[in-house]
Amino acid sequence: MDKTISPDLKSWVNIPAGSDFPIQNLPYGIFKYGTKKPRIGVAIGEHVLDLAFLYRKGYLDNLFLNENVFKSKSLNKFIGLGKAYWNLTRNRISELLREENTELRANKEDLKEALVPMIEVEMLLPLQIGDYTDFYSSMEHATNVGKMFRPNGDALLPNWKHLPVGYHGRASSIVISGTPIQRPKGQTMPEGADTPVFGPSKLLDFELEMAFIIGRGNEMGTSIPTTEAESHIFGMVIFNDWSARDIQSWEYVPLGPFLSKNFASSISPWVVTMDALQAFKCEGPVQDPPVLPYLKFEGNKNYDINLEVFIKSDKGEATLVCESNTKYLYWNINQQLAHHTIGGCNMRIGDICASGTISGAKPNSYGSMLELTWRGTKPITLNDGSERKFLQDGDTVIMKASCKKGDIRIGFGEVTGKIIPST
Amino acid sequence: MDKTISPDLKSWVNIPAGSDFPIQNLPYGIFKYGTKKPRIGVAIGEHVLDLAFLYRKGYLDNLFLNENVFKSKSLNKFIGLGKAYWNLTRNRISELLREENTELRANKEDLKEALVPMIEVEMLLPLQIGDYTDFYSSMEHATNVGKMFRPNGDALLPNWKHLPVGYHGRASSIVISGTPIQRPKGQTMPEGADTPVFGPSKLLDFELEMAFIIGRGNEMGTSIPTTEAESHIFGMVIFNDWSARDIQSWEYVPLGPFLSKNFASSISPWVVTMDALQAFKCEGPVQDPPVLPYLKFEGNKNYDINLEVFIKSDKGEATLVCESNTKYLYWNINQQLAHHTIGGCNMRIGDICASGTISGAKPNSYGSMLELTWRGTKPITLNDGSERKFLQDGDTVIMKASCKKGDIRIGFGEVTGKIIPST
Repeated sequence: MDKTISPDLKSWVNIPAGSDFPIQNLPYGIFKYGTKKPRIGVAIGEHVLDLAFLYRKGYLDNLFLNENVFKSKSLNKFIGLGKAYWNLTRNRISELLREENTELRANKEDLKEALVPMIEVEMLLPLQIGDYTDFYSSMEHATNVGKMFRPNGDALLPNWKHLPVGYHGRASSIVISGTPIQRPKGQTMPEGADTPVFGPSKLLDFELEMAFIIGRGNEMGTSIPTTEAESHIFGMVIFNDWSARDIQSWEYVPLGPFLSKNFASSISPWVVTMDALQAFKCEGPVQDPPVLPYLKFEGNKNYDINLEVFIKSDKGEATLVCESNTKYLYWNINQQLAHHTIGGCNMRIGDICASGTISGAKPNSYGSMLELTWRGTKPITLNDGSERKFLQDGDTVIMKASCKKGDIRIGFGEVTGKIIPST
Repeated sequence: MDKTISPDLKSWVNIPAGSDFPIQNLPYGIFKYGTKKPRIGVAIGEHVLDLAFLYRKGYLDNLFLNENVFKSKSLNKFIGLGKAYWNLTRNRISELLREENTELRANKEDLKEALVPMIEVEMLLPLQIGDYTDFYSSMEHATNVGKMFRPNGDALLPNWKHLPVGYHGRASSIVISGTPIQRPKGQTMPEGADTPVFGPSKLLDFELEMAFIIGRGNEMGTSIPTTEAESHIFGMVIFNDWSARDIQSWEYVPLGPFLSKNFASSISPWVVTMDALQAFKCEGPVQDPPVLPYLKFEGNKNYDINLEVFIKSDKGEATLVCESNTKYLYWNINQQLAHHTIGGCNMRIGDICASGTISGAKPNSYGSMLELTWRGTKPITLNDGSERKFLQDGDTVIMKASCKKGDIRIGFGEVTGKIIPST
């Protein structure tokens, strides 16, 4: 286990209690500040460390880079340097921020430019995303949806326990946390009607997901075994797969969701690296029936990441509506990546693979309004007294993710999005 | 109708009879030649006109461009200049190639560099593709598939005549014509079995499609009405949506095709512009029931493009196995684009939208092996005497597309791919 995640590490930067961003985390993001061009930063406490500035001032000379890859509007180039450079960079940043290190701390002039208050920066989409895939890896979620949509059949379809079901999503409409989400218009077939109608979606929903980022690609025609999957994954973000349920149920046969999903997906701005997450690995659910050999794996490949969803109406305080955890996922990310590439599909740096809605066994752990309100039959009550079956205009959905083990807590920050009316 | 498509135009470049690339066509592609970097070329007869060279030598000065956008490994930057520049460029190239024009023709030295024999160049993927969407717009294809997979239900699903069904595909594995296609491995559920098996696909298929290229994007949250769709489309290519039927039938519920398609799709190298295709517009099938207002359109929006598919075994000559036409498509490209964006999904320059398999009413016009052999029950015989239910290792699939009206014939060239064994 590498030194950068030791609980003993302390930083000279002030880290408020309960912060998502202690020195053990060091997630990467793209930020804008003042008149400066977009660049890579690392979150530390309530500040952003400007890596482009550090590079220019020579603090990162020991990385022996040919150019300032940190002066970029996406992480792709940095990620493309490879795992050896991820480690070197993480180690160096960790070193610079340690209590005992005075290199940066003692240089008041540099310090002012290197460490920017988080509240003053604008976070941008951290990646140039080539392709985006969405899995469907929570058994509880797939079962809930099956019960609602196929009440007379088996809740789980026959393939579900044999392969991590997934499908391709729209990359162009993945947006950064904070971007307003416009209620989509579309075709729906009202119950009992025989002609579809057109208008704003009436059943707008969120889906609580986590997504991993490809850090190393593979050539077309090759595949990535479960044993090598980890070396191809750079980090993770929180992912809100906004869904219009009424559009979805009308359009999705036989080729899957399309307009019901492609109007927007939101991601959190800070990419938490797999290096930072290594202490939070845990066992996943038992897989029975046994999986085919190409999906077998050894060791703990799930992650213990606590997830929360809040809804905040225009009037009230945020209401906690869901508490879940990635450890519930039936299919782990190593299996997802092995399956994705087993036919020879090539992955590229910056590609995103989302988990699918992460629901647990308890009703308060369901990761979508569809499940929480059981298709609108059991409305939930917000703190302001109002009821929700699905999302209303003016609602803000806030998702948070964090891990805790012993004295260490690291977090992902949050992904938020406010619903604005159809135009 | 603009002058560049006049049947009276003749070029000083030799155009063999029946060529796909007369002066009325002028499709764009990316080519490599000798030690030169990839660049934009235009096909003319059996030659490629090097636009990067023409720019450098001043032949394109009247376009008043700030930089040599033709020296690029994709068309995206050129396309991004906008429709006014597409027209200016096309007009200028047409002018330079006309019989009476001596500017280039008379400069023997420039001519040698500007006009490269097509046989000597390597064609590259012409676009940086952000997202790829596949529609399902042939009624005959959807009906055939429905009959085979749902023998006891309605062949067409209820939504099919109300909206152009589509789904997101994998952009990373779209390859240029000529790229070998490795037979994918994957999970399948053999008939009568209760446990899936793993191995190379046994039911490998092609799908005959055409695809259009986005030439102008839209902001997220906005949509492109049918009346404006044409101004957002740059051109078209032939598209082979390789499909593994046994993987598909096991994996596709409920979220659609995934590994059965994402191992590869092939496109033809020359992007034929909508300007060149304008003379080949024709009426489409009557749409009954009437469509919702956002899908209504006026005028002829289908295209009369003849399509052919050949299979060539390792031993024999190519055998013509399918003759179809894009005019059969129930949903036209204006409707596809209007539907794609009606919920606010943003399109970007270089995005690709494929039609779905284009089948006609007659059995010899079916655009896939699945339909041609009716799921393997009616094998087809190749010229070398061998039979095919699906594709075998060593088979090369060749798709061609061309339009003819009066004295003018323009073509797309071809898209080919040879099946190589699983590794």
